[in-house]
Amino acid sequence: MGSSADPLSSFFGKPLAVVNVGLAAFAESMEEQNIAVVDVDWQPPPADVPRLVRTKSGVMIDEANAEAVRRIMSGRPAIVGLGVARDVIPGMTDNMILHAGPPITWERMCGPTRGAVMGALVYEGLAETPEDSAAMVERGEIVFDPCHHHHAVGPMAGVVSPSMPVWIVENLEYGNRAYCTLNEGLGKVLRYGAYGEEVYKRLHWMADDLYPTLADAVELSGPIDLRGMIAQALHMGDECHNRNRAGTSLLLRALGPSLARTCADQERLAQVIEFIDKNDHFFLNLSMPAGKAMLEPAERIEGSTIITVMARNGTDFGIRLAGDPDRWFIAPAGVVEGLYLPGFTAEDANPDIGDSTITETAGFGGFAMAAAPAIASFIGGTAQDAINTTREMYEICFAEHEHFSIPALEFRGTPVGMDVRLIRETGILPKLNTGIAHKTPGIGMVGAGVLRAPEQCFIDAFEAVKSW
Amino acid sequence: MGSSADPLSSFFGKPLAVVNVGLAAFAESMEEQNIAVVDVDWQPPPADVPRLVRTKSGVMIDEANAEAVRRIMSGRPAIVGLGVARDVIPGMTDNMILHAGPPITWERMCGPTRGAVMGALVYEGLAETPEDSAAMVERGEIVFDPCHHHHAVGPMAGVVSPSMPVWIVENLEYGNRAYCTLNEGLGKVLRYGAYGEEVYKRLHWMADDLYPTLADAVELSGPIDLRGMIAQALHMGDECHNRNRAGTSLLLRALGPSLARTCADQERLAQVIEFIDKNDHFFLNLSMPAGKAMLEPAERIEGSTIITVMARNGTDFGIRLAGDPDRWFIAPAGVVEGLYLPGFTAEDANPDIGDSTITETAGFGGFAMAAAPAIASFIGGTAQDAINTTREMYEICFAEHEHFSIPALEFRGTPVGMDVRLIRETGILPKLNTGIAHKTPGIGMVGAGVLRAPEQCFIDAFEAVKSW
Repeated sequence: MGSSADPLSSFFGKPLAVVNVGLAAFAESMEEQNIAVVDVDWQPPPADVPRLVRTKSGVMIDEANAEAVRRIMSGRPAIVGLGVARDVIPGMTDNMILHAGPPITWERMCGPTRGAVMGALVYEGLAETPEDSAAMVERGEIVFDPCHHHHAVGPMAGVVSPSMPVWIVENLEYGNRAYCTLNEGLGKVLRYGAYGEEVYKRLHWMADDLYPTLADAVELSGPIDLRGMIAQALHMGDECHNRNRAGTSLLLRALGPSLARTCADQERLAQVIEFIDKNDHFFLNLSMPAGKAMLEPAERIEGSTIITVMARNGTDFGIRLAGDPDRWFIAPAGVVEGLYLPGFTAEDANPDIGDSTITETAGFGGFAMAAAPAIASFIGGTAQDAINTTREMYEICFAEHEHFSIPALEFRGTPVGMDVRLIRETGILPKLNTGIAHKTPGIGMVGAGVLRAPEQCFIDAFEAVKSW
Repeated sequence: MGSSADPLSSFFGKPLAVVNVGLAAFAESMEEQNIAVVDVDWQPPPADVPRLVRTKSGVMIDEANAEAVRRIMSGRPAIVGLGVARDVIPGMTDNMILHAGPPITWERMCGPTRGAVMGALVYEGLAETPEDSAAMVERGEIVFDPCHHHHAVGPMAGVVSPSMPVWIVENLEYGNRAYCTLNEGLGKVLRYGAYGEEVYKRLHWMADDLYPTLADAVELSGPIDLRGMIAQALHMGDECHNRNRAGTSLLLRALGPSLARTCADQERLAQVIEFIDKNDHFFLNLSMPAGKAMLEPAERIEGSTIITVMARNGTDFGIRLAGDPDRWFIAPAGVVEGLYLPGFTAEDANPDIGDSTITETAGFGGFAMAAAPAIASFIGGTAQDAINTTREMYEICFAEHEHFSIPALEFRGTPVGMDVRLIRETGILPKLNTGIAHKTPGIGMVGAGVLRAPEQCFIDAFEAVKSW
């Protein structure tokens, strides 16, 4: 019992924090005395990276980037309604399936994306079995397109099929809209590549009961401010990517009164509340389109080297720049270092997957991890790792967010606006946190963890900027 | 724009934290460089404080305290129902008013407690006006008693009158129960000493609509675990005393399904949800009786120097020890240092008031402030102050909580079980955070802030222990 102070901290009357640059053994000796140590793995930046100041066409890049982050930060994303994908997502057709990440063919698709496509076609009633789905795809009857090509974002496999209900998020400042499906929960769910009766049944309940109930409530309530909700959630231990317990709670509080006023079926209302309450990730599918809606107004600013898209399809990792938003820069998707659910190991893991890195791109998610020390219990690592991650990401971001702040860093704004120049100059790669899907179609979630974005796509993007 | 690193931290590649012992000017110089500095105001402990190991009657105090904190930590408080004060609070009579803190007469009562008593008697229909209330009291028609003498706790003035609805919280491990009114919100509310039509109208709606709606929901849901909810809230930026946004959110999530199933009146349900949603302090009146329910089983452990009650009536500050729980040790209530609502200043403030320090006593509240850096915006100070407060409180607590932890401190258990011996030996006084009431009856809340408990009651309690 009794409080356990280390002798050195007792002497000082306060706990010590130590920064160690040099021999790791010294840090270990401090750690043995229970003193917090940040061990600095310092290395010189790549020597051959020039500072890009002005494009060949004469645009001052700093000015372009300042305008880009101004637009990103001034965005006001709000839930304005729900709809069915085929009715509301621009360019969506009856034989189209959207997926996360950069474009990809069926042949190169990873297991979980294949699994989600196979499940979605059964859910749609277009195929009888997952095997029939695969046959349909192989006969060329299905068109694939990235969510990002349709103002949409999808977590993990990110599969959106025509009859799925989606959130409609509008950036009230700029008028652009973004779309995302409703979150199914964790475990054996379509977005992690799972299929089967349990998955279809849940998706049908979501379309038949959850969707109309939420749609009626939002129609009565009017626009629901998501920027404010994310800002609050960041003060409540979420980073709004892999920790959304606060966001989910705040959403339920915001929807509660209009849910009560619009849903006369007491049992259905109770089930809707229970479904949301039992899924702390429910808000993810709102923080993502909120991020997308905030980022799109920065696209097509000539000369801006800010990254407006960062997404993975489980095979490839891709980014797009504000100054040239139609071009993907692609590298192989990375391997996630993480915590695994009982019965699974790193052997089962598919490479990095999903559009959810839109959160980091928009200045929260992994970049705001210092706001969410409790995330360590989901993705591994320590609270100090979370603080260090955010501090490091400031080095590759062009700005600090005016509306999203981190109490533990004395309310410093979150790092926002990844600048491909800073990534190259510092040699620091974006750090992401993510769920982990099983590599085999049909299984689902196996864990969660962290990783760095792959370097090659930033090298290629930087080279491309030189030619602007 | 661009990230703003200080030169020293840039050199180290990581931000620095510095502990300064000595000249304050050195710390100021670091602060000018935006480096976090903890300035240690070190002083030797009081030299004349002996270590008390064994009571005269032969009890080993450490053993007694170990049993006390074991009981406190193993408590499992849960909402088991709601009831009307006169029906459910033991010893409550029709002419009795309970109040916060140690016993006090009308003559010595502070303004806000007087205001709350005056308002409560009008609300009860026993008086026509606040002035009539005062006359009734002066004629000796009302009996006053501390909430703590009836297994109850009350925030601020802490007034409980016979017809008020109360939460019933049971410690499922030990079978004891604790009671608390429902939280009214902030501003012009009875517990801050306000009275008037607006106050009575709200209290009547709470008794007529809110109370039966919640009571029906709890009856259907069965016991609602509060220990788990507090543990979660501590991972979501609450400390569960002056920040209860997460706790309030989690409560609404837990109650939601049974509220939906039991309340057929859609408009009433919507208003109940709105009332809770608009009051982030709603959970305070549950974290308090949860604390009380956890602490009571530690009472009457012979030789235990753990503090089981710490409470203020706005005039006096009082504590009680586990080893002698019928005796109050009392000192004058302190002055709060805080943030004021527009139009008010420190001139308007009543001294420290309320039973809400039961939260610190039970190992959360101000003692868990490191979990709630965002509280700075409500009570003043910085996130670093919040961390420092928790670190300091470990020095005067006998244990670290097994169920309540602080992610930012790498999930270290919260400091729990204030030991009056450690308070005397270290010279460190408990640090509290609190709301601030106007000193004049009838007005209400004027701010919130922090202060230390007054030293004299700990000196007296320590002297008393010597004679055990």
